[in-house]
Amino acid sequence: MSRYDIAVIGTGPAGLEAALTAKARNKSVLLIGSAELSPKVAKAHMIRNYLGLPNVSGGEMQAAFLRQMEAAGIKITDERVKNVYAMGDYFVLQTGEIDSMLEAETLILATGLPLSRNLPGEDRFLGRGVSYCATCDGALYRGKRTAVIGYAPKEEDEADFLSELAAEVLYFPQYTGEVRTAPAVKVIPEKPVEILGGESARVLKTDGGEYEVDGIFILRDNIAPDKLVPGLELDGTRVKVTPQMETNIPGCFAAGDIAGPPYQYIKAAGQGNVAALAAVDYLAAKRKE
Amino acid sequence: MSRYDIAVIGTGPAGLEAALTAKARNKSVLLIGSAELSPKVAKAHMIRNYLGLPNVSGGEMQAAFLRQMEAAGIKITDERVKNVYAMGDYFVLQTGEIDSMLEAETLILATGLPLSRNLPGEDRFLGRGVSYCATCDGALYRGKRTAVIGYAPKEEDEADFLSELAAEVLYFPQYTGEVRTAPAVKVIPEKPVEILGGESARVLKTDGGEYEVDGIFILRDNIAPDKLVPGLELDGTRVKVTPQMETNIPGCFAAGDIAGPPYQYIKAAGQGNVAALAAVDYLAAKRKE
Repeated sequence: MSRYDIAVIGTGPAGLEAALTAKARNKSVLLIGSAELSPKVAKAHMIRNYLGLPNVSGGEMQAAFLRQMEAAGIKITDERVKNVYAMGDYFVLQTGEIDSMLEAETLILATGLPLSRNLPGEDRFLGRGVSYCATCDGALYRGKRTAVIGYAPKEEDEADFLSELAAEVLYFPQYTGEVRTAPAVKVIPEKPVEILGGESARVLKTDGGEYEVDGIFILRDNIAPDKLVPGLELDGTRVKVTPQMETNIPGCFAAGDIAGPPYQYIKAAGQGNVAALAAVDYLAAKRKE
Repeated sequence: MSRYDIAVIGTGPAGLEAALTAKARNKSVLLIGSAELSPKVAKAHMIRNYLGLPNVSGGEMQAAFLRQMEAAGIKITDERVKNVYAMGDYFVLQTGEIDSMLEAETLILATGLPLSRNLPGEDRFLGRGVSYCATCDGALYRGKRTAVIGYAPKEEDEADFLSELAAEVLYFPQYTGEVRTAPAVKVIPEKPVEILGGESARVLKTDGGEYEVDGIFILRDNIAPDKLVPGLELDGTRVKVTPQMETNIPGCFAAGDIAGPPYQYIKAAGQGNVAALAAVDYLAAKRKE
């Protein structure tokens, strides 16, 4: 397995700029995110203050960014990172549908703002009836009753997959727009408010009722940064960074919304640039040792 | 005289983005700099890592930025700020050829990297034979022998103006390219290294010789930030800032190269955005008092 110089997680402005700058500095770059870049950017109505792109819609900005990545020869690896392990002088990223491991000497976290706060009970029951990955843990619920809380349309596939194993799948879409799931999936348009249980999670409480289940899948793009990278120091919900975008873990940097407000595209891009140059400096210092 | 909400000094990426963001937030903005934006940007050969503008030359970037400013209805006031006075709850900016005063409630410094370190002797003789402004102090040297150190072609006009008053003008261009001065100006392509004298400056020493003079004009775009804004706290040569780009002076913010490395366009723009939003917050808090 080849080890990348720099892994960038996130394909919003911070991650894209970090990858561009790393590439401009002749580093090998693993850019992991969505081929559709950032759902937050895509939804923006009109952006009036991005120097370089006058009065663009979110969609136009996305298209311009995608063209630029293609022209720069930067490939987007369309995967979800489930866990990151800091190995001392490199990082292992566990990704994707089938468990795969990727390695990089440095890591730039640009995963954006955690979109929702944890549900009450979520932390307590994580690994005991609460899971973040249907593909990984689905088999545990063969013939059982499950709830799936999906924060984006793409999670419908996960619910469909689960419905092939589980006795029952209740799907709670947390987004607007049409929901297209398999006939076996029962769609319940309610907002979860708490997870209840004893030894393990037993009940999903929503704003519309209570549902007895054996397992609850919470599927969001953004898990809390310190859950993604164990040991990462936070300041409230944001990742604590120096002005050079260093985190408390050597070789690990953060940029954009994940590093705190203001939540602005050009500020995120600027921080992605700073993080990439800090990673380049870190690599140079390490290789001199 | 109207008092602006936000004055931005500097028309590189940091200043332009600050003005765009301030305008997007419905603030009245005074943007002071050069109608040609930034000489540093214009000279850039190829910029490969500005997210939004793929592989542009400095000239193309300038043109794109200028079009965006025009489209946003942001006017550039083409003046040089000579002094800033912090008045407590507003700032007075002394500018231009004829002394004029402009007022703003908040100030964003985005004047870029001081291009050259002070010459040995410069600080000691400032106001005693050393001046930064031919237009202001030229009359003191009527019939005298003067040296002009010009860091940009536009300073040739200052040398020409002085030659109408002074007995002799020695012009030391500190840039490449053709020098076009009046016949009375003696052009000496040497690099100044020190200013010598007793009570006042008497000798300009260069890498090519020593020149006895009565006055020395040092004409750069960028004077040291703490000379421009008395009381401003520096960290080495850079302005000391918080992550919100606040300086030690309430209502005064700084962004871009002036706030330290890395010296990158997109990082400067990102900081301009943060500084403008911090100024907006400062104004909101002040008006609630």
